[in-house]
Amino acid sequence: MRRIRLVVEFDGTAYQGWQRQGRRPTVQAALESAVRAVTRERVTVMGAGRTDAGVHAEGQVAAFDTTSKIPAAKFREALNANLPPDVAVIDAADAPPGFQPQFGATSKHYRYVVLNRASRPALLRDRVGLVRGKLDVDPMRAAARALVGTHDFRAFASQADRLENTRRTVKRLDVVRDGDRIVFDVEGDGFLYNMVRAVVGTLLQVGRGKRPPEDIARVLDGRDRRRAGPNAPACGLTLVSVSHD
Amino acid sequence: MRRIRLVVEFDGTAYQGWQRQGRRPTVQAALESAVRAVTRERVTVMGAGRTDAGVHAEGQVAAFDTTSKIPAAKFREALNANLPPDVAVIDAADAPPGFQPQFGATSKHYRYVVLNRASRPALLRDRVGLVRGKLDVDPMRAAARALVGTHDFRAFASQADRLENTRRTVKRLDVVRDGDRIVFDVEGDGFLYNMVRAVVGTLLQVGRGKRPPEDIARVLDGRDRRRAGPNAPACGLTLVSVSHD
Repeated sequence: MRRIRLVVEFDGTAYQGWQRQGRRPTVQAALESAVRAVTRERVTVMGAGRTDAGVHAEGQVAAFDTTSKIPAAKFREALNANLPPDVAVIDAADAPPGFQPQFGATSKHYRYVVLNRASRPALLRDRVGLVRGKLDVDPMRAAARALVGTHDFRAFASQADRLENTRRTVKRLDVVRDGDRIVFDVEGDGFLYNMVRAVVGTLLQVGRGKRPPEDIARVLDGRDRRRAGPNAPACGLTLVSVSHD
Repeated sequence: MRRIRLVVEFDGTAYQGWQRQGRRPTVQAALESAVRAVTRERVTVMGAGRTDAGVHAEGQVAAFDTTSKIPAAKFREALNANLPPDVAVIDAADAPPGFQPQFGATSKHYRYVVLNRASRPALLRDRVGLVRGKLDVDPMRAAARALVGTHDFRAFASQADRLENTRRTVKRLDVVRDGDRIVFDVEGDGFLYNMVRAVVGTLLQVGRGKRPPEDIARVLDGRDRRRAGPNAPACGLTLVSVSHD
C-alpha cells in the first residue's frame, strides 16, 4: 500500500464544497471517482481542509492510498483524463512517510478578491465578491493590522464550540488595490470555520466607512460572532496553497 | 431618435462570437434582445469590431439607436437585468454626435494569456491558451519588436482579400511573464482578421525554440500567411478596450 499526495486546483462554482455528501457534487467525490476509474479501487481522498460551496482552490493538498503500481508522476495525467474540466490535479507524487494532509499543515494561504465597481461582472462572475460603493483601502489596512499575530479568533468563527480552541496565528493579512479589484491575502497556521469570509466581511464594513478601523480590536476582544460583520460571499474566496512540515 | 454608446464585458465561451448569425447564440443577439426587452424596440446593436467564437471582451464598444426617453445612465442596470450572467454592460451614455462604433476607432487593445505549465487549467479553462513545454520570453520579446510599427501584416491575416489594404500600425506588443502565465498586450489602430492570434501563435513557436526571433521579420516581409505560425486558440484572447476620436 502506498500513499499518493496531490495538489488540486478547482473551480468551486458547481460543487457543494470539498467534502463528500451522499450523491451531491463535491470535489472530494469527483476525485474519488477519478481514482476509482484509474485504479479500480474505492478510496477516500483526504483533504488538507474543507472548503465551502462556491469556494475555489489553486492548491488544495489531498492524499489517497492505493495498491496500484502506476508511477506517481503518471497519476496526474491519468486523473485529469477522468476529472471534469473544473477540477485539475496539478501535481501527484509519492507522499512522505506518515503524511496526512488533514494534520500538520504549518501554513495555509487564502486569497479573497473583491470587485469594486458599479456594474456586475461578466468575466469574473462566480470569482469575486462585488462591492458597488466606494471602498477605502487605507482604513481596511489599518484594521487588518490588529488581526495579525496570535489571537483568539472566536469573534470570526461560525459554529465554534464553547470548548474548541479558537486561538490561531495569522501571519499576514495584506489588502491591496489593483485597479477595480481589491485583493486580500491571508496566511495563517489554520483558520476557523468561515473565518476568512467573516474577516473580509468585517473589513469591508471598515472600507465602506460603516465602522472605524479601531473597532476591529474590540470585535476581536469581544469573542462574539454577532459583533463582527457578515461573511463575504463564498465565490470570492480561493485556497491558494497549503504547506506541511 | 438618440444613440446610446455602450461598453460591454463578456465571457465569449458560450457564444459564436460577436456577430448575429440567425438563431445561434452571439453577443450581439443577446444585447439586441436585452434592448428590446427594455425599450420594446427592435434595434441593431453595432460593435466596434467582430470577435470570434470563444474570444472575450472587457471593453467592447457598441451603440444602438432608440426613441426611448430612459436616461442614458439607467440603461446600464436595465440592460444588465435583461442580459445573461456572462454579458454585462459596464457603461452606457448618450453617444457624441455622429458616433459610429464600427468607424473611427483610433486604438484597440487586445490581451492574450498563455498558461505555461504541465497540467491543464481548471480555474482558467476557457480563458487561456495552454503551452505545456518550456517557453522562453526573451526571444519572444526580441521577435515582437520586429512587428511594432506600421507594416503590411498580410502574413498574419486569415482570408485577406488581394485588394484589401493590409497595412496596420502596431503601437505596442509587450510580452511579460507573471508566474506560470505569459501575457501578450497588443495595441494598434486596427487588426486584420485573426491577426492577433496568428501573431501570438508565431511568437509561441519562437518561445519554444522552433523558430529564431529573426524569422519574424522574414515572415512579415513574405506577406504569405502560410509562413506564419498557427492561430493561437481563441479562448486566450480578450478585447480589453477600444478608443475612438
